[in-house]
Amino acid sequence: MKKKTNSKLKIIPLGGLEQIGMNITAFEFEDSIIVVDCGLSFPEDDMLGIDLVIPDVTYLRENIDKVKGFFITHGHEDHIGAIPYILRDINVPIYATKLTIGIIDNKLREHNMLTKVKRKVVKYGQHINLGCFRVEFIKTNHSIQDAAALAIYSPAGIVVHTGDFKVDYTPVFGDAIDLQRFGEIGKKGVLALMCDSTNAERPGFTNSERTVGKTFDNIFADHKNTRIIIATFASNVDRVQQIINSAYKFGRKVVVEGRSMVNIISTATELGYLHIPENTLIDIEQLKDYPDEQTVLITTGSQGESMAALSRMAANLHKKVTIKPGDTIIFSSNPIPGNEKAVSNVINELFMKGAEVIFQDAHVSGHACREEIKLIYSLVKPKYAIPVHGEYKHLKAQASIARELGYNKENIFILSSGNVLELDENEAKVTGQVPVGDILVDGLGVGDVGNIVLRDRQHLAEDGIIIVVMTLESGSGQVLAGPDIVSRGFVYVRGAESLMDEAKQVLEDVMDYCMDRNITDWSKIKTEVKEELSEFVWKKTKRRPMIMPIIMEV
Amino acid sequence: MKKKTNSKLKIIPLGGLEQIGMNITAFEFEDSIIVVDCGLSFPEDDMLGIDLVIPDVTYLRENIDKVKGFFITHGHEDHIGAIPYILRDINVPIYATKLTIGIIDNKLREHNMLTKVKRKVVKYGQHINLGCFRVEFIKTNHSIQDAAALAIYSPAGIVVHTGDFKVDYTPVFGDAIDLQRFGEIGKKGVLALMCDSTNAERPGFTNSERTVGKTFDNIFADHKNTRIIIATFASNVDRVQQIINSAYKFGRKVVVEGRSMVNIISTATELGYLHIPENTLIDIEQLKDYPDEQTVLITTGSQGESMAALSRMAANLHKKVTIKPGDTIIFSSNPIPGNEKAVSNVINELFMKGAEVIFQDAHVSGHACREEIKLIYSLVKPKYAIPVHGEYKHLKAQASIARELGYNKENIFILSSGNVLELDENEAKVTGQVPVGDILVDGLGVGDVGNIVLRDRQHLAEDGIIIVVMTLESGSGQVLAGPDIVSRGFVYVRGAESLMDEAKQVLEDVMDYCMDRNITDWSKIKTEVKEELSEFVWKKTKRRPMIMPIIMEV
Repeated sequence: MKKKTNSKLKIIPLGGLEQIGMNITAFEFEDSIIVVDCGLSFPEDDMLGIDLVIPDVTYLRENIDKVKGFFITHGHEDHIGAIPYILRDINVPIYATKLTIGIIDNKLREHNMLTKVKRKVVKYGQHINLGCFRVEFIKTNHSIQDAAALAIYSPAGIVVHTGDFKVDYTPVFGDAIDLQRFGEIGKKGVLALMCDSTNAERPGFTNSERTVGKTFDNIFADHKNTRIIIATFASNVDRVQQIINSAYKFGRKVVVEGRSMVNIISTATELGYLHIPENTLIDIEQLKDYPDEQTVLITTGSQGESMAALSRMAANLHKKVTIKPGDTIIFSSNPIPGNEKAVSNVINELFMKGAEVIFQDAHVSGHACREEIKLIYSLVKPKYAIPVHGEYKHLKAQASIARELGYNKENIFILSSGNVLELDENEAKVTGQVPVGDILVDGLGVGDVGNIVLRDRQHLAEDGIIIVVMTLESGSGQVLAGPDIVSRGFVYVRGAESLMDEAKQVLEDVMDYCMDRNITDWSKIKTEVKEELSEFVWKKTKRRPMIMPIIMEV
Repeated sequence: MKKKTNSKLKIIPLGGLEQIGMNITAFEFEDSIIVVDCGLSFPEDDMLGIDLVIPDVTYLRENIDKVKGFFITHGHEDHIGAIPYILRDINVPIYATKLTIGIIDNKLREHNMLTKVKRKVVKYGQHINLGCFRVEFIKTNHSIQDAAALAIYSPAGIVVHTGDFKVDYTPVFGDAIDLQRFGEIGKKGVLALMCDSTNAERPGFTNSERTVGKTFDNIFADHKNTRIIIATFASNVDRVQQIINSAYKFGRKVVVEGRSMVNIISTATELGYLHIPENTLIDIEQLKDYPDEQTVLITTGSQGESMAALSRMAANLHKKVTIKPGDTIIFSSNPIPGNEKAVSNVINELFMKGAEVIFQDAHVSGHACREEIKLIYSLVKPKYAIPVHGEYKHLKAQASIARELGYNKENIFILSSGNVLELDENEAKVTGQVPVGDILVDGLGVGDVGNIVLRDRQHLAEDGIIIVVMTLESGSGQVLAGPDIVSRGFVYVRGAESLMDEAKQVLEDVMDYCMDRNITDWSKIKTEVKEELSEFVWKKTKRRPMIMPIIMEV
């Protein structure tokens, strides 16, 4: 006989319900676990040298026998980026729509894992049975095609997870969000709604992606005599489609530049999500064969990323494209929080080269605003509201929408990573906590850079390092060579000779002091060196470089 | 007889006409130079460990005999911050309004320079004669009191420099901007207008500072049962005044927290710019004697600065104030570009502690929007337009306003640092370039951290350092001790033992190779060590730590 406590559904966010990125949520019922999304996040400013951050999925690993599969809502990095790392150990099938699988395939191919991970393409309306769960994919709209909401049927009730979404009644490609189905499932009775909060602070509705196409047409009409360069998100295939449409309409050839842009366009074209009229796309090498006013460049770099194509053009570092006075450059994007300054710097550089830069009004968001969120709540009418996706302030903003719609505080859950929310028709509460955390990826290293290494990097970055080396005689402990001083990242040594000379004198005094007192214990000598030199340097410079004494013995 | 070429006025921006900060501009006519403002800027993200950046004023130093004085438009860091550094060498009097001088005095006192630098308090309408120049101070409005525009009378004509300004018809303290005087001087005929561009992209007018007072009253009325904490810019004394007014009206005691806030409030109170009703201000230690709903905290940290009071409260690191559920926290500020993410992080932390956070609509800008800029142009009607203050894109935006107002391209100058603009009634053109640049301040060091040190810090920050030490026998070159490996900021060594063991093997092979071939030249040995170890580490980790071989000889 089963215990009563087993008959509840557990929802466990394993990654970023507090911060953007690392979207990964486990749904557990008795002996079954399914996972929704498997995202990475990008390093915070204080994670020096780190390339990316993936979630610690110890909980999944410890319950590996229960884990049945991953369901991916769409192909953005914060929903798929950790797949190559996590599916190494937790090798279960991935379910997603066609384009999403296409993008995942590219990623697995880069990691030589294409043959190792099973992927299954799912259609909207299709249901997947895995363990105790049945999962239905529902059409939504987002800034990438083939986005899906999930209806997760469990013995404890239905959970609707919107993924990232917006309501676009007139999408560029494919259908509008399947509002009917949201309503139909709502009518059955939904236990919980996990709804995108990203734009929950913004009033009204997000504009249709199609409105950007009109903006492009207007800009193209106003700039018939110049080259046009447009930076946007590589994965926004509908945006790229609209640029191509405008280019075709105005008789311009299109060049695609930037590795991620080229990759995604080729995947989207192959899979039928992008339609490029014949003789429209040209290679970047052919650019010189056409007059400027007959060309458009679509490029990466809309976030001011220093290595992206547009940033390299702005900094005069791009091998094939030089910005000219008169170029019209469009940022078809908004800066993601944290990137504002980098974007601004690129805009300034472009202006300085004489280009005209358009950085407003050529973008719409991919996320639902307040009225759209209300719409989804009103169709789904869940018993419990679990705001997801966005910073904490966004989750709070959605919670306040739910309050406006009449939900009691007790039925709204803002979860933290690792929280175990147990719920059924009668009750929902956080009953526990599983281990979660950030795993830092640096080059090939996954998890080998932790707090100590980061603290050292921070220290080195702030004030550099002073290395003190000396050779002592085995047995007697007499100084045979040194102490010598070498520094990096501290001061430029030319011009600081007297400082360095004085520092050397300090060290010699330290060693005399140690010799006089027969201090031969290396750790004591090192401590003396560190303390005396540190104090001297602080007094002289008000800086605290890392001081590293190294003793050799002969 | 004088040469004709000498009869032109030279305007030479020495600091930041391209980027925000480091406002400092030389005006030169024959044997006289006067300087407007003397600002610092804060380090860019890639200036690791740098505290602040000051302008390279080699040009002033080389023409020290000509330099007559500094005129300061207002007391913000980007206009006064470099004074203690630059006035050490260039010891001429400073002219500014009363509060501005008060703030400069604080700064000089901190640097033990109060007795070394002459300061002269100037009133609006007063004229200062220095060399060939006469300078008049004109009342303006800004987010700090006592801001001034300058009318600079030279034999070649009048230049009007607005400083940072807005048009506030209903200021909180003192008079509105003296638009009549702008008109009167304009009627005389103005050679050039140097006008604030910061908000040149924004349409319409900036709201009066007074509107924020109404917002405070409304928020206070809506939150009668909670503690209120308000973060704002320390130097915005009018803002602080309005908070105090609302607090007094609603019967709350006021605590001021944060060093810079305490300093400026005491200076402003002393000089009569701030009026605090009796028994309103209490010490932070007394906070516990009053119920929450009878207190207001005014604090620093509106920019998410990690060491500021509000950030420490949010992170639970503040010794005297703990954020409680129910606290109402108001950001009376907008994030300065580059600070968006830090501010957002603090807001999220405060929300997580259960506070209500209000971060919109409790702030107005201190800078003129498009219509105000048009107003000033229409009053001053200069022959030449020289947009100042703001990023390059803002200068461009003001240039386009000037174009709208009918100015020819030839009469609009967007200058770069170091440009020498020569102008008179007949002609204006950039005729040369003087040396300019960033001087980095790190602790006590001014200019001792340059590109090499910064590059090393960047390198150390990215991937850390591996130090290889060995002791060789003098003469024979035989290895007596080592090679040993120590690393910092590379990988956490526990868990990476095998990597380090293999690295050691690589080094021993390198040394064998060198011994076999009788390579005893230290620089050759070091190069071998660097190359082989670097390649090994890259292959194993895809990281490029700094590799530093150190050889000792016995």
